[in-house]
Amino acid sequence: MKMYLDCYPCVVRHALEASRMVTDDELIHLNVLKSVFKILGELPSDSSPQEITTIVHRKIKKLVGNYDPYKNIKKKYNEISLSMYNDLKRKIIESEDSLLAAIKLAIAGNIIDYGASNRQFNLNQVICDTLKSDLAINNYREFKEELGSASRLLYIGDNAGEIVFDKLLVEEIKKETKANIDFIVRGKPILNDATIEDAQMVGLDKIVKVIPDGNDSPAFIFSKASKKVRALFMSSDLIIAKGQGNYESLSESEKNIYFLLRLKCRIIANDIGGKVGDNVLKRF
Amino acid sequence: MKMYLDCYPCVVRHALEASRMVTDDELIHLNVLKSVFKILGELPSDSSPQEITTIVHRKIKKLVGNYDPYKNIKKKYNEISLSMYNDLKRKIIESEDSLLAAIKLAIAGNIIDYGASNRQFNLNQVICDTLKSDLAINNYREFKEELGSASRLLYIGDNAGEIVFDKLLVEEIKKETKANIDFIVRGKPILNDATIEDAQMVGLDKIVKVIPDGNDSPAFIFSKASKKVRALFMSSDLIIAKGQGNYESLSESEKNIYFLLRLKCRIIANDIGGKVGDNVLKRF
Repeated sequence: MKMYLDCYPCVVRHALEASRMVTDDELIHLNVLKSVFKILGELPSDSSPQEITTIVHRKIKKLVGNYDPYKNIKKKYNEISLSMYNDLKRKIIESEDSLLAAIKLAIAGNIIDYGASNRQFNLNQVICDTLKSDLAINNYREFKEELGSASRLLYIGDNAGEIVFDKLLVEEIKKETKANIDFIVRGKPILNDATIEDAQMVGLDKIVKVIPDGNDSPAFIFSKASKKVRALFMSSDLIIAKGQGNYESLSESEKNIYFLLRLKCRIIANDIGGKVGDNVLKRF
Repeated sequence: MKMYLDCYPCVVRHALEASRMVTDDELIHLNVLKSVFKILGELPSDSSPQEITTIVHRKIKKLVGNYDPYKNIKKKYNEISLSMYNDLKRKIIESEDSLLAAIKLAIAGNIIDYGASNRQFNLNQVICDTLKSDLAINNYREFKEELGSASRLLYIGDNAGEIVFDKLLVEEIKKETKANIDFIVRGKPILNDATIEDAQMVGLDKIVKVIPDGNDSPAFIFSKASKKVRALFMSSDLIIAKGQGNYESLSESEKNIYFLLRLKCRIIANDIGGKVGDNVLKRF
């Protein structure tokens, strides 16, 4: 429960952030906050961060009259990341171990997360540092082995912008495995999370099958996913899950999951056994 | 109003922080948060950050059954700061301009603020950096001149721990002025703000008259101060106000006020025309 309580201040911050993305009208911002306080005051005590965020942002979208408040910021980060694609591709090709380099880049791309933090970040610096340093938690050897024998691989994405980095990793993974690969995106807009539109914008749908999860939560929640996606999840023998949200919702799953993420929040860092800023490829 | 909306996430964070200082019972933490959400959802739109914090923390104190949740942390920082007193005094004596050095130290001490941030800080490093660097906003020349001619000086304190640094500055000020000096502390415990107990613990009451403001807000709010303190405030011809809270509540006052503070929050930094981390001695 400790974990959930620490999420409340962030939920309030995101509510303000989301409403400011849509309008400059401070009366609307205030009304959003007041409604959010009302929701938070009445939520069941055992609500997960994802459930809270989903409910809160459904309300925000209604109040601000915009179904996709992060639309512009998602487009902007898709464009920025696409403009880096050729350069990133070259870094991967020129590296000693191209799969490992692509994994590191996919983790570096996880910094593009306006959901987790409104702090400034220097993407080029993060990329450079991540490529140079070792993963803090590193199950790469096992991951590479499993790629060789997997028959159904599910890749659960996280944010817009970051999805370009995921595309680069998918391209490398395809060289290492004969497994069928499906890529899961969120079913509807939520925060800056990638949806089918983002996958199409960055051309991910040209190299792999992209499937919306049928839900509007900032994480993959099995019980809320569509029947088709639940079946895909169950039949996969290797799952890659990107980012903190998916870690929170899937870390207790019994499936064979490799979590790829950058630790951005103290609560999750403690849970996974790392520290904020760590880059992680962890098998559960 | 923009300013107040940005304060809401911090108010929620402080509520959690304050309740955790008193008890490990997570059910109480949750109840505190739920009550805070209820209060925030019902507050008038034009409430100031200080008003919000005051109301919220009155409720928290009641819910956790503790009138002074920050008591231990205040004691701890008084002790840490007292243990540094001799060393700080030597730095002042050995400096080229001892008044300026004492002012810089008093600003450095403003980092001891569990109300404004739960981030870690290295007090020795902050002291060292502050002494070495220039003030970002610097009305020192005017301040020193006014000290020479002032007849009634009011020093409005901020936090526990920091009050040791204020004591060192008061000692230097006394060498530069014949003015009568009164030192104002909060009337009742609120966050980590200094009260009469802290002033007594660090011996400030031995060198200057210390007067509680008669209120339980984390800032000096003229309209809420006792009649005696209001009269003192009005009759002073030179006022020193420490920290962000006092800046927020007094920056529109027409009195002759010098604000001494370290900018710890983006909203206030923008308002004063500086940036987070700046050390400021500003006359209004």
